[in-house]
Order: sequence, then structure tokens, then C-alpha cells
Amino acid sequence: MSDAANAKSMSLIVTKGSLDWAYPPFILATTAASMGLEVSMFFTFYGLGLLKKDMDLEVTALGNPAMKMPMAGMHVGMPNIMAAMPGVGALATGMMKNMIEKKGVASIEELRETAIEAEVELIACQMTMDLFEFKKEDMIDGVPVAGAATYVENALKSDINLFI
Amino acid sequence: MSDAANAKSMSLIVTKGSLDWAYPPFILATTAASMGLEVSMFFTFYGLGLLKKDMDLEVTALGNPAMKMPMAGMHVGMPNIMAAMPGVGALATGMMKNMIEKKGVASIEELRETAIEAEVELIACQMTMDLFEFKKEDMIDGVPVAGAATYVENALKSDINLFI
Amino acid sequence: MSDAANAKSMSLIVTKGSLDWAYPPFILATTAASMGLEVSMFFTFYGLGLLKKDMDLEVTALGNPAMKMPMAGMHVGMPNIMAAMPGVGALATGMMKNMIEKKGVASIEELRETAIEAEVELIACQMTMDLFEFKKEDMIDGVPVAGAATYVENALKSDINLFI
Repeated sequence: MSDAANAKSMSLIVTKGSLDWAYPPFILATTAASMGLEVSMFFTFYGLGLLKKDMDLEVTALGNPAMKMPMAGMHVGMPNIMAAMPGVGALATGMMKNMIEKKGVASIEELRETAIEAEVELIACQMTMDLFEFKKEDMIDGVPVAGAATYVENALKSDINLFI
Repeated sequence: MSDAANAKSMSLIVTKGSLDWAYPPFILATTAASMGLEVSMFFTFYGLGLLKKDMDLEVTALGNPAMKMPMAGMHVGMPNIMAAMPGVGALATGMMKNMIEKKGVASIEELRETAIEAEVELIACQMTMDLFEFKKEDMIDGVPVAGAATYVENALKSDINLFI
Repeated sequence: MSDAANAKSMSLIVTKGSLDWAYPPFILATTAASMGLEVSMFFTFYGLGLLKKDMDLEVTALGNPAMKMPMAGMHVGMPNIMAAMPGVGALATGMMKNMIEKKGVASIEELRETAIEAEVELIACQMTMDLFEFKKEDMIDGVPVAGAATYVENALKSDINLFI
């Protein structure tokens, strides 16, 4: 797409790293790329983990009363005291992964691969790398590391800017 | 507003569905609509529940140390161990609803009605409908169901884009 | 920067008030201001606390499975049941503050001061002031109080809009 100087573009800051919140940025990025937009994703704070070779994403119902799983035809929430029990986070993660697979929705690993194939630009935040002591060798290959100024420059050139 | 081809516009992605986080999108949408902007709201992930006929919104202090209720002239937070107890989520929800009503702030139901009267466009996310097994008959009438590509098209035409 | 009528601009809505989520808006605002952008920040909902003279910011790992602290060369998360224990929130807050200081990252107080010196416009949300009973004298001096319409007007004039 590099020859299309006036292609439309989208720039995302990706700040969250749980299994559920990993979906919106990757779905928006791959959808927009498939529509011909140039897409840039800046991974920072808890979102930086989404650039690790081995993602180990989890989800919890704790603190999110709107998370209700479809179960036996109803939508069932989880009492916080139960959600806090050891192992229940892993259970919720397993249930959500199972539901996603059953519905034929791609995994985050697959969506990330699709984004890379569609030439979505992935950038890792320098400050977060330093602050949380991420190692360059734990991250997927070919991802540049840059600061917030790079993000702002990208955002200034983009038609759609979202903080996720 | 359909005759104003060059009216300003705002497009929101609404991804959260708790009682507190339901306020920002509806307040922004109704305010912008009252100022003459064309407003579009795309409800997805946990935000899709805000399009149900019977909303059953809850709030929790768990995981949000910045949530402090005004009480006896002070701002009081809640220890997480207490917030996790059975019934305390319902108590926090009741306290917040009571505070909102006492201050004369509209309920989410009222704000949604105002948005519809102001011709704010409400769209339900197809993938979330499928993934969480929402039934069309549980949703308010007249809301179209569409995919992420529809959102991206709307966002490209909007002056203000926000991910909420 | 007032003489640059066509300077680029950024407008942020700041809705979160925990120690960790206070960083993205202030880092983006000070970075953009240092690049010559006109920056406006509208503090609302839980974000309004970031305008208090005495901020008392906390962080919790509860409900955020992606929060993992670097420790002894690994990244360590915290089981929810442990994160809910009395005192553990304060421990996590202390650990994060310590990590931030050790890495030479500025505190939120310092970043806010930098933003003010760089003429970033800070605005307090009227409705939140009323709803949560914030007192004008508890807030830092010189901050105007305004409604959502003021935010929308600012956003319409801005090149970058983000909801944080």
C-alpha cells in the first residue's frame, strides 16, 4: 500500500493485555487493513504483552459486572467472591477460549498473524519495555521500538485515532 | 439532520456495559446531538448489553481504586476484600443509582431514549451478537446489526472518533 | 502557542484515576505539547481526581490479569484472592511507585506540573464535580470547570481525539 500516498489510515494505541481486551484492536486493525486503510498499532502499558512470542492471555470476570457468559440459554455473571478464588481465573479463561473457538472466531495469535500479513505496522513502546523489563528476544521479530513522540506523529497523519 | 450534508459528526465505539461506564457514551452522544452533530454509536463486546430492552446494569468498586463515593463529607473507597463479598456489588450499585437520582442526573434508560429521539444512530455488533448469543428479540426495536467494516466506514466520515 | 492559529492540536478525555491509568494521558499530553501541539485535557468521572491538590493514587492487580510486575527476572502476576486481601492494594501501589522511581520515570505530580508549564489546558467536568461532591478548594488552582458541550467543541477543533 506504500504507493497510495493518499490512502486513508487508522492509528491505534493498544494499552490493555487481557484475552478479552486483546480482541478489539486486532479485529479493528485487520478489518480496516482489509478495506485498504493503512493501519498502525502502538503497543504500550499492559498492551505490550500482545507483542510477546508466547502470549499467555487471561481473562477475569472480577471488576467487570457486564461480563456474562452464555450458558444453557441464559447469560450468567459470576459473583466476585467466586471470581476471586484460586483457579477460577483459569476456568473463566478456558471457558472464553472454548466459546471463541466454538463460534469460529480467530484466536489472538491468528489475528496478529493476519495483521502482520496485511502489513499493519506494529510498534513497541520504548518506555514500557524499560519500565516492565521486557526483553527484545521475548518479542516477535521485526517490531520496531519507539517512543510516544512516534505515536503522536503517526496519529497526526491518521484519519481515525483510537485509544484502546 | 439528513439534509445537512456537511454537518459535523461523531462516531463512538461503545465497549463497556457496567452502570458507571454506560454514562460517558450516552452523555457525549446526547450532548453532541443537541449541538447539531450527527452521532453514530456502535455497540460491541460488553457494551452490547446497553441495547437490551431490559438493562440490568451493575457497578463494582473491585479493580477500580479510584472509585470513591461521597459520604458524610468525605470520599470513601472500599477495600477489595469487602467489595468481593456477596451482595456488596448490589449494594454499590444501589448506592450509585441513589446518588445519581439524588443529584438529578438522568438514568441510562432515559439517556438512551433521549439519544433515540435525537436521531442518534445505534448499531449492534454482529460478531458480539453471535459470540455471546444475544437474541434479536431481547434488543430494543429498530436497531440494525452490522459488522466492524460498517464501523470503520462510519469512523472515516466522522470528525470525532472515540473508543469508549 | 496562542499565535499559531493553525498549530496542530490534541484533545483528551481523561476518565480513569488509578495510578497506572494516570500515566497515559499525562505522557501523551506532555509529549505532544513538547512537539508544539496545542493540548486540551477534559477530566471527568474517575479521572477528575487527577486534578486534586492532594492526589492519593492507588493501583490494584484485581481485575487486570495482564498486570505483571518484573521480579527476579520474571514477570509475576498476582492471584485475585491474594490481591483482594487488606493491605495488598497498598503493597502493589508501593511496588509500582518504587519501580517507576527506580526507572527514572516521572511521578504523576511531576508530569502534571510539566503539563501546566507547557500550557496544556486542563478542564474539570462540571457534572462530575456535582455528582461526586468535589470541592473547588480541593482542586489545583486555575482550572476552569465546564460541561460536556465544551469538550465536544474542543474535540471538533482537534486533530487527535482520544478517550482515555
